[in-house]
Amino acid sequence: MKNWNEKRVAIREILAAEAPQEALVAGWVRTVRRGKGVAFIALNDGSCFASLQIVLDEGMEGFDAASQVGTGACLAVRGQVVESPAKGQRWEMQARQVEVLGDADSDYPLQKKRHSFEYLRTIAHLRPRSNTFGAVFRMRSALSFAVHRFFNERGFLYVHTPIITANDCEGAGEMFRVTTLPEQQPPTENGQVDWDKDFFAEKTGLTVSGQLQGELFATAFSDIYTFGPTFRAENSNTSRHAAEFWMIEPEMAFADLADTCDLAEQFLRYLVVYALENCREDLEFFDQRIEKGLIAKLEALAAATFETMTYTEAIERLQKSGRAFEYPVEWGCDLQSEHERYLTEEVVGGPVFVTDYPAGIKAFYMRLNDDEKTVAAMDLLVPRVGEIIGGSQREERLDVLERRMHAFGVAPQSLDWYLDIRRWGTCPHSGFGLGFERFLMYVTGMENIRDVIPFPRTPGNARF
Amino acid sequence: MKNWNEKRVAIREILAAEAPQEALVAGWVRTVRRGKGVAFIALNDGSCFASLQIVLDEGMEGFDAASQVGTGACLAVRGQVVESPAKGQRWEMQARQVEVLGDADSDYPLQKKRHSFEYLRTIAHLRPRSNTFGAVFRMRSALSFAVHRFFNERGFLYVHTPIITANDCEGAGEMFRVTTLPEQQPPTENGQVDWDKDFFAEKTGLTVSGQLQGELFATAFSDIYTFGPTFRAENSNTSRHAAEFWMIEPEMAFADLADTCDLAEQFLRYLVVYALENCREDLEFFDQRIEKGLIAKLEALAAATFETMTYTEAIERLQKSGRAFEYPVEWGCDLQSEHERYLTEEVVGGPVFVTDYPAGIKAFYMRLNDDEKTVAAMDLLVPRVGEIIGGSQREERLDVLERRMHAFGVAPQSLDWYLDIRRWGTCPHSGFGLGFERFLMYVTGMENIRDVIPFPRTPGNARF
Repeated sequence: MKNWNEKRVAIREILAAEAPQEALVAGWVRTVRRGKGVAFIALNDGSCFASLQIVLDEGMEGFDAASQVGTGACLAVRGQVVESPAKGQRWEMQARQVEVLGDADSDYPLQKKRHSFEYLRTIAHLRPRSNTFGAVFRMRSALSFAVHRFFNERGFLYVHTPIITANDCEGAGEMFRVTTLPEQQPPTENGQVDWDKDFFAEKTGLTVSGQLQGELFATAFSDIYTFGPTFRAENSNTSRHAAEFWMIEPEMAFADLADTCDLAEQFLRYLVVYALENCREDLEFFDQRIEKGLIAKLEALAAATFETMTYTEAIERLQKSGRAFEYPVEWGCDLQSEHERYLTEEVVGGPVFVTDYPAGIKAFYMRLNDDEKTVAAMDLLVPRVGEIIGGSQREERLDVLERRMHAFGVAPQSLDWYLDIRRWGTCPHSGFGLGFERFLMYVTGMENIRDVIPFPRTPGNARF
Repeated sequence: MKNWNEKRVAIREILAAEAPQEALVAGWVRTVRRGKGVAFIALNDGSCFASLQIVLDEGMEGFDAASQVGTGACLAVRGQVVESPAKGQRWEMQARQVEVLGDADSDYPLQKKRHSFEYLRTIAHLRPRSNTFGAVFRMRSALSFAVHRFFNERGFLYVHTPIITANDCEGAGEMFRVTTLPEQQPPTENGQVDWDKDFFAEKTGLTVSGQLQGELFATAFSDIYTFGPTFRAENSNTSRHAAEFWMIEPEMAFADLADTCDLAEQFLRYLVVYALENCREDLEFFDQRIEKGLIAKLEALAAATFETMTYTEAIERLQKSGRAFEYPVEWGCDLQSEHERYLTEEVVGGPVFVTDYPAGIKAFYMRLNDDEKTVAAMDLLVPRVGEIIGGSQREERLDVLERRMHAFGVAPQSLDWYLDIRRWGTCPHSGFGLGFERFLMYVTGMENIRDVIPFPRTPGNARF
């Protein structure tokens, strides 16, 4: 069977076709059923959730080899796509020629049975061939594209902010060190490691956020966004933390806190609608097998009014709730997940922006409100998850920013460039961050961040 | 002037409008000219190359402050967009109200004059406000979107391959180490650093390529691509090397070397046509000021036939050329830039794929040809640049791959997962890599890689 690669047709296209056709397909065997003089193979090429049923008749070219293959084998098949008499599928392929490109024996680790997600993480190189992870990573791809399309349609400039950075002042968590110094006996100067001798002639690490550099670009291009990997060296083995994850961070010049809330609302709704319109088959799987009611939840979010309440109101609501929270509630405390979920699920019954947090519990760059006690920060809370987006208006007044940096112990000289933006041509600006994996967990119902990242990095695990 | 942020209109939209309009704009001052009772301000908001001319009349609200601002100041202006009597611009704005959001004094480092690119690199936080870097980063953004659109239209799945990796076997260059061990006295075991104690419980670094993981995904989703940051810890201070840069790496199952050449040709043409159609104003600037004939070069590439010759033919052509090359030419040698440029500029006079390189000078994973001397590799050469894309068909035969790994000194157990893909359901597959910055240099005419990266990382430099 030469030239099997003449022009392969994706199974997605085969299944969406309007009329019968002659075609060449290729993919991996999900199941084989053998009957008398016939074999049925479910072939999946990852282009969509569904497999194509291939009907092989005894006597056709390659029948003997193909009808004996195991789950996971790779086949190329040429044949006629015809209406299927079987239930639940419109088309099947009556094979004319079949070639086994790669066989799979019974040691293949992804046999046709239910596997635990824990087990599948140990074979992250093969799990994309399973129903669940096929669907997860198709949605990850589709929604990545939706992110870019949303901002492109609105004229936002996409900026690749640096991964390696010498800034350690964001305080968003511990950083990984990046170095080429000798691992065992690094050069020292006065008893300290001499970072002058390192690759970048200073101490560097992996970025925790592209926001600060994003602000620089916003003060040249007005509307910008980042979408790239960020890192946290936190030794926390939870279902919601990974050492490496992707973030989306838009930043708008000439925009205040209300503007960034508006953008966050539009953005989240756009992504959810995009998923509903473009990932239906995968969503139906998640709805049936991973989170019952998922599609209804997403449709509710798409139709929801996004409410707003201040942190001060939120504290009052929590205190009046009569609930026995694990963490006590008082003005000045950070909201815990239990508080956030109570607010969005019980008080509002839908998405809610909580705004104007106490200055002391938020980052130094957030804009100080006129009350001098709170900052123009917001968190968007959604049912079942709690916080999904966090943002703020940035402090654009040089003197106030310097004062805040001092209070937070951030050395101004380490961020001279960040201050320069306030020194010349400063402007109000604001933006937010969305952890892409957290959003994917929300939209798929997957409960462990390790299961929405192709090859997750967590404490003790950098395999693949 | 409250509510100046009512609904700002991008200057790009103002300048593209069909009819006069009342609007609010905001941006940064490029120039101020003062006349009798009037001032003219060129205002730029980064949404497009051109600035909007603002006409301020004495007596209007805010005139005194606004007409005194320096280059770099930030203004919000409400007014009437009217046809401009001035040459070279269709619209100008007759201001009604103006507010100085942020002034700029004469210390502003980006005064209205010609600055060297070397100087501008030292103010990478401000250079996006210059003509050249505004154009560069708008094109970087536009072409990033074009990359995603190209693959999305063709049903390719976008995969985020890991940045932190324990693989050090690609041999594509030195790697940065990623660690959280104590910097000075890391724990040791038998006199060696005890990587078990590090964050990931093994020695890790920054990825040099997403290809190997991309191959894993191609054997589940058929057609995939990566687009993300990659790293090289090479201490080379050239105009073409950066420590951190972005790569695009598609991978296709059921595809041989010819298929990946086809894809590379379509891809490159698509990006160039996208730039010609969507970035005209920026390209015209580059054509006039950076590389004369740039647009003609791009149009030629878009219309060109992409030729193919084998490495063996290329060596013969070079040997017969009568040229005195700096590096001698003989079968088995790596092609140098001078050879590549001779082939594409003199021999072919256009883009050419050179294929089937000697096995000894290419990576272990490239598919061994039947002659057992060459591998199914390709480099795409284009005039003025030389190599712009490199790719190959991958070795899908387990036994051959194991033999090649042995010959290259790559330990099979370190890549068990890579071998597994050949063990179960293996299939022919191929792909290529495009260094995004190298492409941006080609398409803008910029000659230093530091000038197409927002905040470049090079030896001794991780600032911003």
